[in-house]
Amino acid sequence: MDIIVLRQDATEEDIRRIVKKLESRGLGVHISKGTERTIIGVIGDTSKIADEEEDAVKVMPGVEDVLRILKPYKLASREFKPQDTIIEVGGNPIGGKKIQVIAGPCAVENKTMIVSIADKIKSAGATFLRGGAFKPRTSPYSFQGLGEEALQYMAEARGKTGLPVVTEVMDPRDMEIILKYADIIQIGARNMQNFRLLLEVGTCDKPVLLKRGLSATIKEWLMAAEYVMSKGNQKLILCERGVRTFETATRNTLDLSAIPLLKKLTHLPVIVDPSHGVGKWELVAPMSKGAVAVGADGLMIEVHINPEEALSDGEQSIKPDAFKKLMEELKPIAAAVGREI
Amino acid sequence: MDIIVLRQDATEEDIRRIVKKLESRGLGVHISKGTERTIIGVIGDTSKIADEEEDAVKVMPGVEDVLRILKPYKLASREFKPQDTIIEVGGNPIGGKKIQVIAGPCAVENKTMIVSIADKIKSAGATFLRGGAFKPRTSPYSFQGLGEEALQYMAEARGKTGLPVVTEVMDPRDMEIILKYADIIQIGARNMQNFRLLLEVGTCDKPVLLKRGLSATIKEWLMAAEYVMSKGNQKLILCERGVRTFETATRNTLDLSAIPLLKKLTHLPVIVDPSHGVGKWELVAPMSKGAVAVGADGLMIEVHINPEEALSDGEQSIKPDAFKKLMEELKPIAAAVGREI
Amino acid sequence: MDIIVLRQDATEEDIRRIVKKLESRGLGVHISKGTERTIIGVIGDTSKIADEEEDAVKVMPGVEDVLRILKPYKLASREFKPQDTIIEVGGNPIGGKKIQVIAGPCAVENKTMIVSIADKIKSAGATFLRGGAFKPRTSPYSFQGLGEEALQYMAEARGKTGLPVVTEVMDPRDMEIILKYADIIQIGARNMQNFRLLLEVGTCDKPVLLKRGLSATIKEWLMAAEYVMSKGNQKLILCERGVRTFETATRNTLDLSAIPLLKKLTHLPVIVDPSHGVGKWELVAPMSKGAVAVGADGLMIEVHINPEEALSDGEQSIKPDAFKKLMEELKPIAAAVGREI
Amino acid sequence: MDIIVLRQDATEEDIRRIVKKLESRGLGVHISKGTERTIIGVIGDTSKIADEEEDAVKVMPGVEDVLRILKPYKLASREFKPQDTIIEVGGNPIGGKKIQVIAGPCAVENKTMIVSIADKIKSAGATFLRGGAFKPRTSPYSFQGLGEEALQYMAEARGKTGLPVVTEVMDPRDMEIILKYADIIQIGARNMQNFRLLLEVGTCDKPVLLKRGLSATIKEWLMAAEYVMSKGNQKLILCERGVRTFETATRNTLDLSAIPLLKKLTHLPVIVDPSHGVGKWELVAPMSKGAVAVGADGLMIEVHINPEEALSDGEQSIKPDAFKKLMEELKPIAAAVGREI
Repeated sequence: MDIIVLRQDATEEDIRRIVKKLESRGLGVHISKGTERTIIGVIGDTSKIADEEEDAVKVMPGVEDVLRILKPYKLASREFKPQDTIIEVGGNPIGGKKIQVIAGPCAVENKTMIVSIADKIKSAGATFLRGGAFKPRTSPYSFQGLGEEALQYMAEARGKTGLPVVTEVMDPRDMEIILKYADIIQIGARNMQNFRLLLEVGTCDKPVLLKRGLSATIKEWLMAAEYVMSKGNQKLILCERGVRTFETATRNTLDLSAIPLLKKLTHLPVIVDPSHGVGKWELVAPMSKGAVAVGADGLMIEVHINPEEALSDGEQSIKPDAFKKLMEELKPIAAAVGREI
Repeated sequence: MDIIVLRQDATEEDIRRIVKKLESRGLGVHISKGTERTIIGVIGDTSKIADEEEDAVKVMPGVEDVLRILKPYKLASREFKPQDTIIEVGGNPIGGKKIQVIAGPCAVENKTMIVSIADKIKSAGATFLRGGAFKPRTSPYSFQGLGEEALQYMAEARGKTGLPVVTEVMDPRDMEIILKYADIIQIGARNMQNFRLLLEVGTCDKPVLLKRGLSATIKEWLMAAEYVMSKGNQKLILCERGVRTFETATRNTLDLSAIPLLKKLTHLPVIVDPSHGVGKWELVAPMSKGAVAVGADGLMIEVHINPEEALSDGEQSIKPDAFKKLMEELKPIAAAVGREI
Repeated sequence: MDIIVLRQDATEEDIRRIVKKLESRGLGVHISKGTERTIIGVIGDTSKIADEEEDAVKVMPGVEDVLRILKPYKLASREFKPQDTIIEVGGNPIGGKKIQVIAGPCAVENKTMIVSIADKIKSAGATFLRGGAFKPRTSPYSFQGLGEEALQYMAEARGKTGLPVVTEVMDPRDMEIILKYADIIQIGARNMQNFRLLLEVGTCDKPVLLKRGLSATIKEWLMAAEYVMSKGNQKLILCERGVRTFETATRNTLDLSAIPLLKKLTHLPVIVDPSHGVGKWELVAPMSKGAVAVGADGLMIEVHINPEEALSDGEQSIKPDAFKKLMEELKPIAAAVGREI
Repeated sequence: MDIIVLRQDATEEDIRRIVKKLESRGLGVHISKGTERTIIGVIGDTSKIADEEEDAVKVMPGVEDVLRILKPYKLASREFKPQDTIIEVGGNPIGGKKIQVIAGPCAVENKTMIVSIADKIKSAGATFLRGGAFKPRTSPYSFQGLGEEALQYMAEARGKTGLPVVTEVMDPRDMEIILKYADIIQIGARNMQNFRLLLEVGTCDKPVLLKRGLSATIKEWLMAAEYVMSKGNQKLILCERGVRTFETATRNTLDLSAIPLLKKLTHLPVIVDPSHGVGKWELVAPMSKGAVAVGADGLMIEVHINPEEALSDGEQSIKPDAFKKLMEELKPIAAAVGREI
């Protein structure tokens, strides 16, 4: 039910026109005259009323404001599906008691590198391998990824370690090739509202890891999830990766409060990417601990053998030894919040 | 030339390693020891050094910070091309003395509507017709546009009025069909960093109108322009449409200071979309006047015959009569800043 | 009238408890059961209900959200006083047809300097003299202003030019001395929510110029105005000076849309400070033009004889010649919007 | 050492003028001509050069930009004092191995209430009592605190429980009375840049708890600390309480990454206020866990016997039972990061 707040000077004629418009959409009304304002409560399923109609009511004579009460997403909401969604990939359940750890380099640079990193993170306890084949870069002159070659190397690393592979899709035209190799399809922050891409991954049957947009509200993020789910694919994982604020000492401001908040609003698993979230390797370990403590279902961490030679994001990558140490340090924190890692 | 600031405790060995790395990239160095800090000036064309290498230097032992001095975009910069770029479309030069006005509905709803609006805005003085065929909507349940049908209607409206057509592309797979009908291809705010789409429009020979991203810095925006231009298409128009801030009383915060700032940094034409910038129809007229006063090369204004029945963005659309009145009011302001409208 | 939205699982007992609480505050209720949600409309003067009680209702069992409909400020609102407030200072009406221009240096550095600037801006058409005696500086090691000495110099400059004086108060303990010399008391951005200082200036009988806080919403700003007015002083002038965003190319993001928006919400005069708003002298002239075009009642501009030697804010100050040229250029824009300058 | 970047078209005359200006301040220069740009390195203690002089150099002919390398704060910096500062209050060391927990109501409402809460939080393990006597409220019509009466009640609660008292000062004129009762003086977020108040608390000998401003950068926050310390008071505790972003689902965005970052930049203790940070009681427990996991030295938590009847901030307060449970849950997390609670 929505609420229409009228202006103090709204006339009877204004009210009649609004009521007529609502009734023409099959909705009932409930008029309530207060001492200061009259409000119209709309009765019926206003979720059929798209935002554009709400806007149209807002400009009608006599209307001061329209308040929306129902959430604009459904399939993604906890009310629609109260129990937690658990997504199993390669034997690893995401969203259950065990915290899953996705690790690997920002970009796949060559075969030796990705196989070697996969090996090291596997032995440290990681459960998924990440790596970029198609890279979104702010400069057209930066390294854009190895493409299919990278996907082949990752598949080889998976063959050797058993780690399922997570990689990003940037273009609907790449879906076919990525689906051949990847176990989880990632949508990057800059594409969170690339609606055509969302619809495209919504029709595939592989899990989708949806990163939060650079300045996306929680509501917009869940509506992006709804885009994917509305096409049939319910295997969605949300990934907090920091939002843009005025602060320049960190690359982004990692919003850890989003995790417990999302746990109330949605049944979907929520993981955290501290590497992009802060952009400084020294802060990756403490923020990983924080993420586990607030209730994240998983972590996504950039690991590089030699960050000083990385072709991308060297500043926020940690070395395999630091990763191994971190995995040990996370165990008691996971235990403290009733989880395993 | 870039600058590397060393930590107070950097050793001679640290310095040697950094110098070696830079020399291996064909760069010279200039070491300068201050009382508090040693800094290394990098000599040579560091524009060949991508951001990722900068990151890699940042994590070397002894390094405190790396400062970039050269701008990360070239083709778009005023230094590269000092004289203003003027883009002529259908006889209307964009970026010259005359301020161009693009008007029309958010979404094309049917033929009668778009033809009628085109007719009215033409007689009020608009020089381009806008209209959405493919609409980016935050909800999957909202009206997504009529697609090619809308493009055909717009072409018909162009046939009757002579107004060239501006419409948005959301998906590289739609380029072929859009190029058949449109005179200017628009990239929306949510796709400002959809790098594949940028590369795609960079290879066509129609002008591109690039909206600023929801929370994009001026630098990122110019780098998105650089993406398009690096592919060969130099016909780029920038469009300020508001940025996201904490303020909720307006839809976005229209950043008019971006106009005179961009005029210093780039040779490209810059226009303003006050409709999306504020999201409230009552503010469209004053903000249009402000845009002309600060030096915008054009305006993009949402006009709808009946905003109360609009399928999209009714709240921020003005009616043809208000548009006509506004066009008259803009004339003395344009004259005051040495322009025509 | 406020609205309380209940959770889907709210019980009859929950409703009874809420109703009882409201009735104990002398308020009536209107319960409205929709298909998806029950809402409670609160009848009576909820402006007596402070925010804290609203918070208290929010945490009651069964409550999902509390929506406030009435504006939380009164004396400052256009509804309370529909006609524009015009404040006359030294024969200059602020808020009327004539646009008032306050100019002068950031800080008063010595007598010769302030007298000389006053003389030059007066002949260029400025109607008020600004100058800092007590300066808020982010570093304790920066120049903090000359204090009373500066006030004496400004009074002398007023004696010679007739320009009324605007200066900032930072501390309630300085009020007595400032009231001796100043014609308008300025509250700086950093003190917009220094509530004790607001109450203090609310009891004096001189006009108050209230700058918008660094990240203040329009609502918070008007509530700060309400603080002053609630103490009896109705002579309040609002000054937009830019808000903090993620953009780093300008010092702040000047929010010109605040001007026409405030003109709807409040009867108070609204002026613009483009110098702090952008922080770059090259942008002061275009943004001043924009401010006049969107409907500002005045401008506040930093002018310095020799910005290269300024003890404060040199980067955003313009020279007297540039100021004189700007004043000429503003005339046709003021005329275009039905004003004088 | 600072760096001055020259424009491509800077002349020899420009350079001579800049060098002369720097030498007149007792500074040396180091000119370095690159292929694209000439830069001037400034030699000597530029910390004597205030920001205003930097601004003045920025506007000199031929100058493109001035880069500051040295940090603008000293006493607060880790470089100045490498070892952690530990502040002992009433036998509780803040900044050491033990995590200190400050709990209590937003505002002191009456004696029974504060004594009862003090008793309950003490038995749950809190080590300090918080409570507002002078309350900063956005509305002049909201409850403003009981003033000295509240301080007396808190002193009584301290007498019964032994818990030292933390309370906020809003006005330099209240210092005398607050110093009579309080053990730690709090500076609230809205007063972080109330420089006169900072100078005032800098001269007292009680520890100061300095909250981060609503949209303050880490650098500005440390400079506010520097204000206090420059007056002699080195007993400063920093308190992260969330920053303002575009997100509206939480009251603020709690920036937990600030904790490990501050631990690198400063020797001062850093605590976290999750209650104001998120503004929703359901999120207080998970965010408290996150704060301990990322390395906070303490927590500040709002506890109220009956949040539904609170006169302030009911929505973000937890009840004594929930607080007790939380204290237990924090123990294993504290242990996991080598701390006690």
